[in-house]
Amino acid sequence: MALLRQYCMGEKPIQIEFLSDQSVNFAANKFPVVNYEDPNYNVSIPVFSIHGNHDDPTGPNNSCALDLLSVVGLVNHFGKITSLEKIEISPILLQKGRTKLAMYGLGSVRDERLHRLFCHKKVSMLRPKEDKDDWFNMFVLHQNRSKHGQTNYIPEQFLDDFIDLVIWGHEHECRIDPEWNGLQNFFVSQPGSTIATSLSEGESKQKHVGLVRVRERAMKCSKIPLKTVRQFYTEDVVLCETSLNPEDFNITQIVEEFCVAKVEALLERAESDHTGNPRQPKLPLIRIRVDYSGGFEPFNICRFGQKFVDRVANPKDIILFHRRKAIEKKDF
Amino acid sequence: MALLRQYCMGEKPIQIEFLSDQSVNFAANKFPVVNYEDPNYNVSIPVFSIHGNHDDPTGPNNSCALDLLSVVGLVNHFGKITSLEKIEISPILLQKGRTKLAMYGLGSVRDERLHRLFCHKKVSMLRPKEDKDDWFNMFVLHQNRSKHGQTNYIPEQFLDDFIDLVIWGHEHECRIDPEWNGLQNFFVSQPGSTIATSLSEGESKQKHVGLVRVRERAMKCSKIPLKTVRQFYTEDVVLCETSLNPEDFNITQIVEEFCVAKVEALLERAESDHTGNPRQPKLPLIRIRVDYSGGFEPFNICRFGQKFVDRVANPKDIILFHRRKAIEKKDF
Ligand SMILES: [Mn+2]
Ligand SMILES: [Mn+2]
Ligand SMILES: [Mn+2]
Ligand SMILES: [Mn+2]
Repeated sequence: MALLRQYCMGEKPIQIEFLSDQSVNFAANKFPVVNYEDPNYNVSIPVFSIHGNHDDPTGPNNSCALDLLSVVGLVNHFGKITSLEKIEISPILLQKGRTKLAMYGLGSVRDERLHRLFCHKKVSMLRPKEDKDDWFNMFVLHQNRSKHGQTNYIPEQFLDDFIDLVIWGHEHECRIDPEWNGLQNFFVSQPGSTIATSLSEGESKQKHVGLVRVRERAMKCSKIPLKTVRQFYTEDVVLCETSLNPEDFNITQIVEEFCVAKVEALLERAESDHTGNPRQPKLPLIRIRVDYSGGFEPFNICRFGQKFVDRVANPKDIILFHRRKAIEKKDF
Repeated sequence: MALLRQYCMGEKPIQIEFLSDQSVNFAANKFPVVNYEDPNYNVSIPVFSIHGNHDDPTGPNNSCALDLLSVVGLVNHFGKITSLEKIEISPILLQKGRTKLAMYGLGSVRDERLHRLFCHKKVSMLRPKEDKDDWFNMFVLHQNRSKHGQTNYIPEQFLDDFIDLVIWGHEHECRIDPEWNGLQNFFVSQPGSTIATSLSEGESKQKHVGLVRVRERAMKCSKIPLKTVRQFYTEDVVLCETSLNPEDFNITQIVEEFCVAKVEALLERAESDHTGNPRQPKLPLIRIRVDYSGGFEPFNICRFGQKFVDRVANPKDIILFHRRKAIEKKDF
């Protein structure tokens, strides 16, 4: 709230015309008006947002965190559904000069439910009646994009193909550069989470925010690397593919030293990658996934972590042992 | 938040000059400015508030609910202490025409702690250096006023006698008409809670809010009855002081009928007292405290409540049996 007040309020006038019916776009809001047109607030940068799955509407008033930000005029909360049976998305229509932007939004819905609604043709996206083809159409949603089971995600093919750009929330991996979907004729940009919330591969990519510039029907996307995110490095090690010999005397200690060297190498990388921004945490997250199949033994990961207590943010779980290869062998 | 935005924001200019140092008065706030002077907000009715004991500052940022309302410019949160060892209260100094108001505030502090700080002379109230005697001095606090043990309350004598009016929060009983304290030479107004939070005698009084008008050093207080509070009636019954005879055949049933009549009488009063405001709940709270000492037997209060399930808000605990008289007799 403080950041929004500090950076998004001010005298600078907004040159974007709001053309659609605010009482429709913001029907679920207590004050169904765009914040920069409220005469009691000076907004210099209007923020529009849908809600996610960790902050979805609940309780007797079906309210969510974004509703609070919206009630106090800091955020324009849109894309909140009012029925679980049928979803009609009315776009926010904005115009600046000759550029017309239609912004469709859909706050997070349980994937199975939304998948079913799509299958039953219960999701529709309304389009402006006039000059249909003059609009740049953007769709913002917050759902599983990768397939977690048959119906527990939203296939890109479900989305309307008149859309030009999909901003896909919820997935944590930063794939912010727009990816072309040739089947659907739209781009998908997946910004990813702003910080690593788990020690998985996808989270170790550089985090970005995006800037989309639209001019008439053309867009230009650029990405801005985040400089204050805690660094995270991960590496996979398959012991039986290294030169280490499980028969060696003291092999467990040798493996441990091998892993120490890996961590040291990543720490060196982290140090040279550090942005120098004082607000970027000093200690990085490190995760080494060690496949110890082929006759190796795991060592004590707690004791291992103690060596890095002052240099790694997650000393207790740097090492993750597993035995994938062994299981694969069993399959033969 | 919605009510504050709806009723306290608007174009009407504020004619009150803020004379004291805002960075001192609001030192504990993220934005240490009075909301109506922030150029990004149009405030038509500024709200000033201290915090209570159910919303006291906590957590790593020592923040409280009022801080949120303050960060978004809806409320001016003052009287938040920054040290638990020593309290210095700098008044908010307001001027309108020839009237000068010094508003001292102290958010809720644990009573024992504040009692001790007062005893050790660690609480001081700063006064404006110039024209000391021109100021109307108001003090707002939120503490126990009635004596709950030796140190678990704040005696009025602890407060500085240069104060003209004390607004005493926390106590639930409405004693809003200013009471003169001749020892201290100040008035105390205790607004009380806005709704009944327990079924005790004090809560059954009509609830009010107050309006204090100050002109130079004179004040005029008026009270405004709240019209949408759920009604609450309570009555004490001492069975052995009635004409009922504990030796009677069927006496328990007779007592029950006696109580039914009491409830019916209170329900009749409730009906005629109802303000007619559609937002005032229809069902009143009713509490009959029944002293059954002297040979009477309690009846089943659950079954009793069932008779009033659609007419009383608290059918399950209308009746409270006790035996005070019996205990007093034992003392002889
Ligand atoms: Mn999510
Ligand atoms: Mn998540
Ligand atoms: Mn309380
Ligand atoms: Mn209280």
